[in-house]
Amino acid sequence: MSLPPEFHALAKRVNNWGRWGADDEIGTLNLITAAVVREAAATVRTGRRIPLALPLQQDGVQSGLIPGRVNPLHTMVQINQEIFGPGTVAISDDAVTMGLQAATHWDALTHASHGGRIYNGRPAGTVTAHGGAQFSSIATAPPLVSRGVLLDVARTHGVERLPGDHAVTPEDLDAAEEFAGVRVGPGDIVLVRTGQIQVYLAGDKNAYAYPSPGLSVRTPEWFHARDVAAVADDTLTFEIFPPEIEDLWMPVHALDLVEMGMLQGQNWNLETLSTACAQDKRYAFLLCAMPEPFAGATGAPVAPVAVL
Amino acid sequence: MSLPPEFHALAKRVNNWGRWGADDEIGTLNLITAAVVREAAATVRTGRRIPLALPLQQDGVQSGLIPGRVNPLHTMVQINQEIFGPGTVAISDDAVTMGLQAATHWDALTHASHGGRIYNGRPAGTVTAHGGAQFSSIATAPPLVSRGVLLDVARTHGVERLPGDHAVTPEDLDAAEEFAGVRVGPGDIVLVRTGQIQVYLAGDKNAYAYPSPGLSVRTPEWFHARDVAAVADDTLTFEIFPPEIEDLWMPVHALDLVEMGMLQGQNWNLETLSTACAQDKRYAFLLCAMPEPFAGATGAPVAPVAVL
Amino acid sequence: MSLPPEFHALAKRVNNWGRWGADDEIGTLNLITAAVVREAAATVRTGRRIPLALPLQQDGVQSGLIPGRVNPLHTMVQINQEIFGPGTVAISDDAVTMGLQAATHWDALTHASHGGRIYNGRPAGTVTAHGGAQFSSIATAPPLVSRGVLLDVARTHGVERLPGDHAVTPEDLDAAEEFAGVRVGPGDIVLVRTGQIQVYLAGDKNAYAYPSPGLSVRTPEWFHARDVAAVADDTLTFEIFPPEIEDLWMPVHALDLVEMGMLQGQNWNLETLSTACAQDKRYAFLLCAMPEPFAGATGAPVAPVAVL
Amino acid sequence: MSLPPEFHALAKRVNNWGRWGADDEIGTLNLITAAVVREAAATVRTGRRIPLALPLQQDGVQSGLIPGRVNPLHTMVQINQEIFGPGTVAISDDAVTMGLQAATHWDALTHASHGGRIYNGRPAGTVTAHGGAQFSSIATAPPLVSRGVLLDVARTHGVERLPGDHAVTPEDLDAAEEFAGVRVGPGDIVLVRTGQIQVYLAGDKNAYAYPSPGLSVRTPEWFHARDVAAVADDTLTFEIFPPEIEDLWMPVHALDLVEMGMLQGQNWNLETLSTACAQDKRYAFLLCAMPEPFAGATGAPVAPVAVL
Repeated sequence: MSLPPEFHALAKRVNNWGRWGADDEIGTLNLITAAVVREAAATVRTGRRIPLALPLQQDGVQSGLIPGRVNPLHTMVQINQEIFGPGTVAISDDAVTMGLQAATHWDALTHASHGGRIYNGRPAGTVTAHGGAQFSSIATAPPLVSRGVLLDVARTHGVERLPGDHAVTPEDLDAAEEFAGVRVGPGDIVLVRTGQIQVYLAGDKNAYAYPSPGLSVRTPEWFHARDVAAVADDTLTFEIFPPEIEDLWMPVHALDLVEMGMLQGQNWNLETLSTACAQDKRYAFLLCAMPEPFAGATGAPVAPVAVL
Repeated sequence: MSLPPEFHALAKRVNNWGRWGADDEIGTLNLITAAVVREAAATVRTGRRIPLALPLQQDGVQSGLIPGRVNPLHTMVQINQEIFGPGTVAISDDAVTMGLQAATHWDALTHASHGGRIYNGRPAGTVTAHGGAQFSSIATAPPLVSRGVLLDVARTHGVERLPGDHAVTPEDLDAAEEFAGVRVGPGDIVLVRTGQIQVYLAGDKNAYAYPSPGLSVRTPEWFHARDVAAVADDTLTFEIFPPEIEDLWMPVHALDLVEMGMLQGQNWNLETLSTACAQDKRYAFLLCAMPEPFAGATGAPVAPVAVL
Repeated sequence: MSLPPEFHALAKRVNNWGRWGADDEIGTLNLITAAVVREAAATVRTGRRIPLALPLQQDGVQSGLIPGRVNPLHTMVQINQEIFGPGTVAISDDAVTMGLQAATHWDALTHASHGGRIYNGRPAGTVTAHGGAQFSSIATAPPLVSRGVLLDVARTHGVERLPGDHAVTPEDLDAAEEFAGVRVGPGDIVLVRTGQIQVYLAGDKNAYAYPSPGLSVRTPEWFHARDVAAVADDTLTFEIFPPEIEDLWMPVHALDLVEMGMLQGQNWNLETLSTACAQDKRYAFLLCAMPEPFAGATGAPVAPVAVL
Repeated sequence: MSLPPEFHALAKRVNNWGRWGADDEIGTLNLITAAVVREAAATVRTGRRIPLALPLQQDGVQSGLIPGRVNPLHTMVQINQEIFGPGTVAISDDAVTMGLQAATHWDALTHASHGGRIYNGRPAGTVTAHGGAQFSSIATAPPLVSRGVLLDVARTHGVERLPGDHAVTPEDLDAAEEFAGVRVGPGDIVLVRTGQIQVYLAGDKNAYAYPSPGLSVRTPEWFHARDVAAVADDTLTFEIFPPEIEDLWMPVHALDLVEMGMLQGQNWNLETLSTACAQDKRYAFLLCAMPEPFAGATGAPVAPVAVL
């Protein structure tokens, strides 16, 4: 069994292997140039900062559906410990165990493979238990500071959140862009809002996970055409789940990460940002979204901040 | 036994308890106003982005000296796993266990206490094993995006790095400020460079830890006078270690975190930034340094980015 | 608010504080004498070995009900790694994160406290984040090898498993003892079978947890009268849950661990043992049940083996 | 590059593939029959129980030499927490992260492979990040309760401990057996004492690790001839390290685990047992040494107990 012809047709149209040389490990992050960053900084108007990460906590978004992707277990290893003797300054310290893809995170390009290949045509076998991803680990990512653009598909549709079977299409992205009054361009980091995270925030992890609206298999072409640097949304699966095409699971992951070499973000909380953008009638901003640089990792938590 | 009178004299001069109300949990982070953020964005000239975090890896800065503060243990929980059957898209996933203060991090205000009190006079007993810090956890911090100023004390002294017994004094900060041609002001995040992290980068964790240059017990007053929002440096202990005053251990932690309510950052790699600032002859920049929002935590890893 | 008078009346009758001296940390484990061990070894007839631990796995008995008590997360840190070069012998290594009370385990005496006291009247404050339990940690336990006696309450009642609201009473224990044809005595480790673990084995973690049959608040007196060394059963909560007396939560924990100083075991799989004992018509055997000696821990996993 | 001819000659002589059928996963553990267990129980004379595990603690035997094999990090997740309200019974709970081969442990047969094969000729690729070892994981091991025999090589040589370059040879095992006055036979678990663990107990982890006495590449034949069930010793590396034959690293692991299918134990503390056996002039005993049954694991901690 292998992936169907329609997948390969899509793959061919978005493939970036070799575009930045045979040695490239970062794909579309190459598109964040110094000029893009300067323009991003120039978008700041009010100075308002909006955090986009969920709190990292044991009662996180993971419900046990995905094996090994555990919510953060936070423990104290010292509590007001007078290390240097009674009456001295006391110290508290903590430790954590967590799945790197468990909370608000970026997938590294190596998070997905198909046909034995990762981004840029390297063998998938370069990801091993000993050291993780030899190439394209999250630690190879240059700082993700760029212009952010919110494509608020839910608001564009006039709903609080999209229904679970809504695949976000290129036409939805066009409409949201028009609604936003902004043109998505090279090096942008696009945030797609479905409103789905409200389901988790209301306390239902299972319904948050599935069924979930998310990106259509047709969207990678749209992002490719615009030369977007990275895309994040407010769902667990990023793409619509269950998928649009029977038995074609996780096609968007394969197209974005493997073929195009474009980072994906999941479980981003875009609710406050949505309200702020609607109030300001501005949907472009400075976005700081540097992943924690775990060596060899195929993904990492991130605490993104939009500066309006 | 308790802390000596000279400590209490210093504490009195920098104390901010009640300054932002009895309910305040974030201390000097209140000083990062929207106006400060707007000005920070306006400092961007070249658009160059410089990451300041060390890679998160098992061969990190911890040598076992501090009990429980373990370097990141990164493990793969899935490697190219064809979750939905043979020939489907394959997924790799990872997990980590680490001390939250083990790598490049921010201390939360609750990382230190003395005399049974944390910042704003709350009982130290509000930090417990069940849920961690009830108040002033790192998750209460608003987005740390502000103007960053590099005070390059090593370069000002004309040395690669300060010797292990060098306490960075207010006079050193004045000199570095003059060297930088910039005036530190309200809401700034100050980065103090000693060069000590070179010792770790050269492979010697033990010598990196101790003896280490670092901030003098006299510097909190300087930061207080300037109404700085937060301070980070390139050492394991932040303050000079062993301390300047016999048997007065960790006084700077107590003054900054407990009395003033000012966040501290440690193990920041300021080497590339130092070279870039010297080349550009500019020492102020936009700094994105949002900690991972671990609920209840007394510190958290951060992947800071300077945008020049 | 404090514990009701009826609790204190029970506590007084089973209290062992001072019985083995003011310095004692192990309570009723003192009752496993060399003579008891010799007799235990002499009970072996067939040489059949029956393991009583559940597999340690992510799909373990914990459902998230108890904060922080996480099922084992097993990860590979090396897979067939040719450490000394290509073509050399390859090594696989693993790591785990887990709650020490998450699976088949012993509670240490310090797992419970009430009124600020642990076993033998020591302050509960001797359990801290720094080093865990200073006294009566699981690592202080001498080897738990003794005579095991199965009190198969479910089989005695002629049912597969007891209903969720069945409190196992002293009368139940008497009946099971008579059914077994054995007299429980000093130093014995008693295994009480309710059959409840079948609910977990059938895939329903939530129903396994609650409501659950378990030991009645009246059983500690029975165990005290017989000078039993330790008791384990096949439930998550050990005692009946919800409790028999309104608003008196976890009284058996307080009586067994704090007052009597007797170890408790939970999540033991007694199903195969039950069948074997019924076939052999013998309910006493050699039991090897040494907990993993985690320094400072208030409980630990155990892989018990009954030798018939 | 591949393993030298002398290795393959040795391998041929000890190979047990197919001996217990093509489906076998447990190798020489098949040799622990009910009759062996009955005889083991009959060796008990005094009823004295001697624990053989090191405490599980952060200051354990690992020095960082072996990547990913981390000492136990024990943390408290609840401390005297009054879960059901003020004044109720309080609970303390803990969690741990550790390398499964970090402390006193058994290697599973899958801990080693060579030439792409594990025990019984199965592909090494059956060990994966997803679920670990599909065959011959430590959880497949039947209860390790059998006759234990201490071969006290150090005492036989009249030294406290063997020097770091001493390879324990078949002749050493013969001499220790004669010294012990016992004949090692089918199903026995042999404990080989070098005294090396004294180096760790004296505080020097690095010198404990290397150079270390240990089993010679010639010993697997001896164990094979006697049909031993398993072998453990008091060193970090089990076999002499660095190895006897240049560039032939870890040959004993490959012969014992892969070819013969015989479990190995490391970091066992045999000091107290040595004294007790010498006093009693008896070197055979009942040994309870059941590993924690981690699903899919290639090794596991064990808390062994010798009953004399």
